[in-house]
Amino acid sequence: MSTAKYALGLDFGTNSVRALVVDVANGNEVGTAIFVYPSGQAGILLDPKDTNLARQNPADWILGIENAVPAALAEAKKKVKGFDPASVIGIGVDTTGSTPLPVDRAGKPLALYKEFKKNLNAQAWLWKDHTGHAEAAEITALAAVEHPEYLAKCGGTYSSEWFWSKILHCLRTDQKVTAAAYSWVECADYIPGLLTGIADPVRMKRSRCAAGHKAMFNDKWGGLPAKSFLTKLDPRLGELRDRLYQKTCTSDVAAGGLTKEWAKKLGLRPGIAVAVGSFDAHLGGVGSGVETGRFVKIIGTSTCDICVWPASKRLPDVPGLCGIVDGSVLPGYFGLEAGQSAVGDIFNWFASVIEPGGPKKGSHAALTRKAAAVKPGASGLLALDWLNGNRTVLVDQRLTGLLLGMTLHTTPEEIYRALIEATAFGALTIIRRFEEFGIKIRDVVNCGGIAEKNPLVMQIYADVTGLPMKIARSAQTCALGAAMAGAVAAGRRGGGHETFAEAQAAMGGVKSKVYRPHAANHKVYLELYALYRALHDAFGTKAWTGNLHHVMKDLLAIKDRERSGRC
Amino acid sequence: MSTAKYALGLDFGTNSVRALVVDVANGNEVGTAIFVYPSGQAGILLDPKDTNLARQNPADWILGIENAVPAALAEAKKKVKGFDPASVIGIGVDTTGSTPLPVDRAGKPLALYKEFKKNLNAQAWLWKDHTGHAEAAEITALAAVEHPEYLAKCGGTYSSEWFWSKILHCLRTDQKVTAAAYSWVECADYIPGLLTGIADPVRMKRSRCAAGHKAMFNDKWGGLPAKSFLTKLDPRLGELRDRLYQKTCTSDVAAGGLTKEWAKKLGLRPGIAVAVGSFDAHLGGVGSGVETGRFVKIIGTSTCDICVWPASKRLPDVPGLCGIVDGSVLPGYFGLEAGQSAVGDIFNWFASVIEPGGPKKGSHAALTRKAAAVKPGASGLLALDWLNGNRTVLVDQRLTGLLLGMTLHTTPEEIYRALIEATAFGALTIIRRFEEFGIKIRDVVNCGGIAEKNPLVMQIYADVTGLPMKIARSAQTCALGAAMAGAVAAGRRGGGHETFAEAQAAMGGVKSKVYRPHAANHKVYLELYALYRALHDAFGTKAWTGNLHHVMKDLLAIKDRERSGRC
Repeated sequence: MSTAKYALGLDFGTNSVRALVVDVANGNEVGTAIFVYPSGQAGILLDPKDTNLARQNPADWILGIENAVPAALAEAKKKVKGFDPASVIGIGVDTTGSTPLPVDRAGKPLALYKEFKKNLNAQAWLWKDHTGHAEAAEITALAAVEHPEYLAKCGGTYSSEWFWSKILHCLRTDQKVTAAAYSWVECADYIPGLLTGIADPVRMKRSRCAAGHKAMFNDKWGGLPAKSFLTKLDPRLGELRDRLYQKTCTSDVAAGGLTKEWAKKLGLRPGIAVAVGSFDAHLGGVGSGVETGRFVKIIGTSTCDICVWPASKRLPDVPGLCGIVDGSVLPGYFGLEAGQSAVGDIFNWFASVIEPGGPKKGSHAALTRKAAAVKPGASGLLALDWLNGNRTVLVDQRLTGLLLGMTLHTTPEEIYRALIEATAFGALTIIRRFEEFGIKIRDVVNCGGIAEKNPLVMQIYADVTGLPMKIARSAQTCALGAAMAGAVAAGRRGGGHETFAEAQAAMGGVKSKVYRPHAANHKVYLELYALYRALHDAFGTKAWTGNLHHVMKDLLAIKDRERSGRC
Repeated sequence: MSTAKYALGLDFGTNSVRALVVDVANGNEVGTAIFVYPSGQAGILLDPKDTNLARQNPADWILGIENAVPAALAEAKKKVKGFDPASVIGIGVDTTGSTPLPVDRAGKPLALYKEFKKNLNAQAWLWKDHTGHAEAAEITALAAVEHPEYLAKCGGTYSSEWFWSKILHCLRTDQKVTAAAYSWVECADYIPGLLTGIADPVRMKRSRCAAGHKAMFNDKWGGLPAKSFLTKLDPRLGELRDRLYQKTCTSDVAAGGLTKEWAKKLGLRPGIAVAVGSFDAHLGGVGSGVETGRFVKIIGTSTCDICVWPASKRLPDVPGLCGIVDGSVLPGYFGLEAGQSAVGDIFNWFASVIEPGGPKKGSHAALTRKAAAVKPGASGLLALDWLNGNRTVLVDQRLTGLLLGMTLHTTPEEIYRALIEATAFGALTIIRRFEEFGIKIRDVVNCGGIAEKNPLVMQIYADVTGLPMKIARSAQTCALGAAMAGAVAAGRRGGGHETFAEAQAAMGGVKSKVYRPHAANHKVYLELYALYRALHDAFGTKAWTGNLHHVMKDLLAIKDRERSGRC
């Protein structure tokens, strides 16, 4: 009989939930399963009349747990001789966010009641729902005048994707839901509440990560935004504050123990620790080995960047970051979140929408192969990576793409490479912003499919940033991070780990292949980056004044030099 | 027996020569033939070691006349009952330029001598030869200090494509050719000299068009540039001046009569008028019906624009134009030449090099069909048409393309349309420059394959410029213009016309289809043009300072408005 202990990570994504069973001693991933949400389009409830709307059915989450967990355990049984589900000692949860939903006094989602089943406003308001864009602008405007400190922690702009924008929009547009909603919880709050039975919206343990990044919660100003502030936006929002929370918890803390009912349903031991929830990127950072001086890039269609900084040290407000929240990633550290609005999406646009030369020639594989032969600077091209706006450092959705330097001889692979380089310049801009405010970066750990499968992208990132690019060992860093939270919530006494650092050391790690910057390439890229910054500042900031006459000429000069082979 | 009279137009292009037989009474084109030059690559002699080099074998021109003229006459005989070659009353000649070649004392090209047959420097230096780029810079620099008036008539920069740059480069690099060359003639000088036997380089009638546009010839300063100026560049250039010319002629003047030898060879009457030569675009302007207030666009891979202005009226120097020459298009009028370095080439680049979706989806036909469904302003895209530099008004080859406004949903047809719009904005910039200096434009006559075959391009040009777009009736406006010159050189007594105006009225015309601007589209395009100008000035001029923060936002606002259908 094996004495190994396991933690279960539950990763609630946009389209599906993943369950991952991980050996707490060495990080071996022994069982995993995915459940795709059955409602709407791949789990997203849409409104053909309003492209801003994106909701999710909380019943899908419940179904997801009921299906994915037993399937993952079944795989573990196949893979590990003598595997016993009773050796699972803790559960961690990561979710999308901000994904709030209205609940009743007992914490039950209104969406689960028959009368609200078909009401889109009673469902979970998925992170990518933008119906509250007018309310977001209103909140930003009021905060700018009355509480600029609120905005300083979230990049200067309160987003339509976030908690208060969504609730305020609901208050104003759906009186039935407003009247029935005792409180609102984030998905990251709801799932641990569900599994532990501590679902009372006032008494439940709320996610520090969700509260801090999306609800402007900060102990500095006494938790949630001032009642007077919320009341000015809408008296009902001020009243709601009293039915929310005064305290939040980090994910090393247990939200409670697994209920008997759920333990029975899933085949697990009752009472095992269920950690307080966090967002996917934040636990992804943990699963990738985030620590002081390390920059974690979770690269997908967009990119989420995670960093930490000791809470004991001074940290100024860093303008343009998505959020700075004490404990949102690791307890005792500020969690710093940044991001790029499109990365893989840009490459996909070029390969799939523009599709140069047709499906075969225009495939990622073909374009990557040819783009690898293009020398830095030799195409004369420069692009801005704003095809979906700019999240960090400009915090501006109303920006678009730019490609410059084309001649009649410019090839598709040169454009493809310029687009990759543009996302690398975007990454460097974020890293420089961190460093300008004292947060020195030593190395970068990347995760996601592009990081694992495209060495060209990784090498360009290394060459552009001048930093070594490492790849997280796990392909499921979010679920792994959640499993680490489960292990830490259980604690050493419970068979897990005492701290995240201990869990990371035991369960995490990076692959042996490291992409190191080539000095000569880095030198060329710094020249190109100066031109990228000129465009970035000229089109992205109001304060810039200057002249761009040199840009095309400098690019041609670099191109001529790099093509002729001179250094 | 028909009493109709005919004129013969000879159009010497880059790859071939065309002969066109035209009825002087009504412009009917009764016979035509093309002869493709046999030397080099499609008539161009190249040097694999020097991509700047492009030469042409003058023997090809002679072969071309010997072949194309009888073939065109043979077609006329088939088409017109009783056609008699003796009813051809005059010959006109248009050529590429500047395409100078070294000749001996008798005007015989050195290239026709055995010892020089294989020497590339003894051939004609084709217009697109750029081997004299260093010499061009030298000429520009010296003129800027000593004779800025020379530059004021040719856009502020003396080009490497032009007469003196090429000769100066030859003087410095080939002593054999330099020693053997008594003089240099333009192709436009050489052909009439050949056909009339008046080939003596000092006595022959030289082309005003070639001299004025390419050799800085202007009666204002006594003809060719001052001897002192040329001597400073190179003493041998100063000496050469005495073996060139003091006088030039417009193309209504006969260079002489057709020699007996040539008449016999071609089956024409000896002694018929051969007009003084001009460049293709200039006689193309004539063939398209150029007159005061009319803007002629000869649209091909690049575009050449031709306008005239009464020589009796005041005309300031218009900065950025390729050239302003009294009589270069019509006698008694200033000929004004402008141009866009790439037009069809840009569309070809996108369809053939980028080839979105593969050969079928990426074809001009497919892209045009889909692009026609995109509303002005609705793509949010804006492009600069500088993929081959900017000829007018910036006169700067060191500029490149730019595409701005892409999102993850941007389609190939939207980009294709944005590229068409960019060339239209480039055209509007030239028209506005003309108008700023008092040259009011009433309508535009277009010629070339794109004008004839792509209604979308023509409609966009009308909508962007706010001017009616007409299409020249002839598909061969250059050869037609040359035939008109032949008819005018013959004069009324010779069976032709007394003036170009008379010849144009009888032989020219436009098609019945006119593309008129849609007011609503024009309004949107003027908004986009303001943004185009911001980019144009920011990247194209040293003087500009400002901010571009509004550009992407304005484009998005226009896009949102135009997509929602509001006005």
